[in-house]
Amino acid sequence: MRAVDLIARKRGGERHSPDEVRWLIGAYLDGGVPDYQMAAWLMAVCWRGLDAAETRALTLALAGSGRRLSFAGSPVPVVDKHSTGGVGDKTTLVLAPMLAAAGVAVAKMSGRGLGHTGGTIDKLEAIPGVQATADPDAFVAAVRAHRLAIASQSAELAPGDGRLYALRDVTATVESIPLIASSVMSKKIATGAQVIVLDVKAGSGAFTKDVAAARELAGAMVALGRDVGLPTVAVISSMAEPLGRAVGNALEVQEALDTLSGRGPADVLDLCLALGSEALVAAGVAPALQPARQRLEDTLRQGAALEQLLGLVGSLGGDAAGLLRPGGLPTAPFILGVPAPRTGYLASIDALVCGQVSTGLGAGRTTKESLIDPAVGLVLGAKTGDLVEQGTPLVTLHARHPLAVDSEPVGTLLTAFHWSDQPVTPVPLILETLR
Amino acid sequence: MRAVDLIARKRGGERHSPDEVRWLIGAYLDGGVPDYQMAAWLMAVCWRGLDAAETRALTLALAGSGRRLSFAGSPVPVVDKHSTGGVGDKTTLVLAPMLAAAGVAVAKMSGRGLGHTGGTIDKLEAIPGVQATADPDAFVAAVRAHRLAIASQSAELAPGDGRLYALRDVTATVESIPLIASSVMSKKIATGAQVIVLDVKAGSGAFTKDVAAARELAGAMVALGRDVGLPTVAVISSMAEPLGRAVGNALEVQEALDTLSGRGPADVLDLCLALGSEALVAAGVAPALQPARQRLEDTLRQGAALEQLLGLVGSLGGDAAGLLRPGGLPTAPFILGVPAPRTGYLASIDALVCGQVSTGLGAGRTTKESLIDPAVGLVLGAKTGDLVEQGTPLVTLHARHPLAVDSEPVGTLLTAFHWSDQPVTPVPLILETLR
Repeated sequence: MRAVDLIARKRGGERHSPDEVRWLIGAYLDGGVPDYQMAAWLMAVCWRGLDAAETRALTLALAGSGRRLSFAGSPVPVVDKHSTGGVGDKTTLVLAPMLAAAGVAVAKMSGRGLGHTGGTIDKLEAIPGVQATADPDAFVAAVRAHRLAIASQSAELAPGDGRLYALRDVTATVESIPLIASSVMSKKIATGAQVIVLDVKAGSGAFTKDVAAARELAGAMVALGRDVGLPTVAVISSMAEPLGRAVGNALEVQEALDTLSGRGPADVLDLCLALGSEALVAAGVAPALQPARQRLEDTLRQGAALEQLLGLVGSLGGDAAGLLRPGGLPTAPFILGVPAPRTGYLASIDALVCGQVSTGLGAGRTTKESLIDPAVGLVLGAKTGDLVEQGTPLVTLHARHPLAVDSEPVGTLLTAFHWSDQPVTPVPLILETLR
Repeated sequence: MRAVDLIARKRGGERHSPDEVRWLIGAYLDGGVPDYQMAAWLMAVCWRGLDAAETRALTLALAGSGRRLSFAGSPVPVVDKHSTGGVGDKTTLVLAPMLAAAGVAVAKMSGRGLGHTGGTIDKLEAIPGVQATADPDAFVAAVRAHRLAIASQSAELAPGDGRLYALRDVTATVESIPLIASSVMSKKIATGAQVIVLDVKAGSGAFTKDVAAARELAGAMVALGRDVGLPTVAVISSMAEPLGRAVGNALEVQEALDTLSGRGPADVLDLCLALGSEALVAAGVAPALQPARQRLEDTLRQGAALEQLLGLVGSLGGDAAGLLRPGGLPTAPFILGVPAPRTGYLASIDALVCGQVSTGLGAGRTTKESLIDPAVGLVLGAKTGDLVEQGTPLVTLHARHPLAVDSEPVGTLLTAFHWSDQPVTPVPLILETLR
């Protein structure tokens, strides 16, 4: 087999056999196929796509490129949760403890954030003392001991995906449904997940800007899960506006704690209940969505989910008890309330702009090497559909440096808010579910 | 500027500014943009194309990547001729001497053949003693002294094209109209041509299999020539069957000598007259095609064109006088006449199959490192439209090793011949002319 022939065939819109895909990925990882041939093939894949069999072969080749964890023999099903990334998305910090408290295990490896969306690990590490591990053995042990582990993505797992992703990143070949699906699912498979619940975002702040694209990506991942024998369910949720009100690492941890304490924003809770009930049903531990939802709500009411999160924080070196006290999270020295420039109904709040302003304040990375500031970010004073009076607090900025109301970040942020004189019905949060 | 952004824009179907193209090619040749980014960009170009302005910018960037020759001050216009490659295509060996004898200068650098089409240099070097030069100074001096020079493509000219082509070759990005057009024309520009005549082949033995594709390529090159101020004309000629009857290096030299002596195949002569008369008119040395054609025919009748070729052979170290004597060219030890398997009209002769069989005998290269055998090849005993009687010689194979009538190469070759019980009108040789 020759790489140039496979590139030519994909370029011509032909399909590869599973053997050909396996050979190509294997030869690339062995160094027999150079980066430039793989780059040409990746662009041809962006052009021509991969069908289900090719995507499965790619996924399994990547999953098998390093160590594979196993939770075989676990007394409860092991669930993995993945979000395609959004602004203000603290779902994992709420959902994972709820699921662990509701009787399944949660084993989640997570990346660090890049660009306008944050990563769960960055959020966890905003808690003083917390240091996420990337050690697979510690990860497996934590799942077995506590039914809950959140760790940094280990380089030992699916290293081929890491190499391929690094190449895609510099060759403008990231945006491809089959390549994204295989990248996500290869890591889930290598992590040993037994049930997968996916939160596929659709909207300005998401990778997939519209529902059709989100549906395509969700469909590819659900089909891939089915193809490799992993129960997989995907919820398509709106990322038109930020999820919840807080955007920024420590601010989002606070909002997660609030949600686990029963006083968080309704949309954060709704999304966690939707994803969680799907996961419990897919895992076979609840007979239907309604009882599953009830069980998850009980974990909040009884404080069991909050206890799970505090236990996780403690196991990662954080001061769990101190976390609930004032000053338990880093705070920014400058807090600027931005007054509403007019009276009206909020027609929409552009999540991408909010994410970019938060990143600009230091909450996110613009390059892989950027240091992030855990304390900074923003908190929305109103959400889509709200009637806001001119001069009342529209949004609060938490900054490391002094910031004026007429500064550029504030000006940019205000472009995120679109107004209406008439009442507005927000887009539903949960758009579709694919099982 | 960042390469990844340019790749993303081309991937998305956007146009580059000329500055962006210049920057990308410059950075690639300087080593600032790695092969893998260029490979991804090339595949995106295969997908999305380049418009006229982008193609011009690419062409000029490649033409300017090394030394540029100039024939400024030449007393006669300097013509360059290019063929997109065909089977049995000895046109340059006939046309270049005719043009030189007709009062223009011909300055042609040529590649070596690869695959089923031969290269002019390989054909010239089939003549004992001939060693083509790749030295630009010797090339320029020969054009000035003899009005005729055929040299190997110099690595000093358009080296960027050489680097880009090597990358395209291993990334399945050769087949792209704007990339081919810019590659061809960048070399012509660097060679200092003042008038360009292009022979764009269409048919099974050509890169462009149908007239539409040939027209697109020809149109792109003619437009590019006009855009950079170089009079350029393209003739689209049929490559459904081999040109002439001989396929193989020394066999084709013999056919070229025959044509220059007034006893060659009609199609070889017709094509040379068509290309040559276009060149003389484009060069402004003939007022119209008919007198131009007359002037070219005179060079044959008077022997002046043959003298030009013999002069060229002598200047390259060959025995010009001996060339016209029997045994002046290498001959193969085994000559097999293949009888016609049936009686009928020849409906078509697949040029690609003929080229592949000839290459298989050793006349062409299957890899860049292959050594070629100057003596081997095949000679057609009949052409499309001919009525052939069963058992009469259909084709003669010239081989280095003994070959039986029931051997595999003969079996393959016979699949090239398609038969009809009814008289057949061959496709015209000259399909279109683009000026």
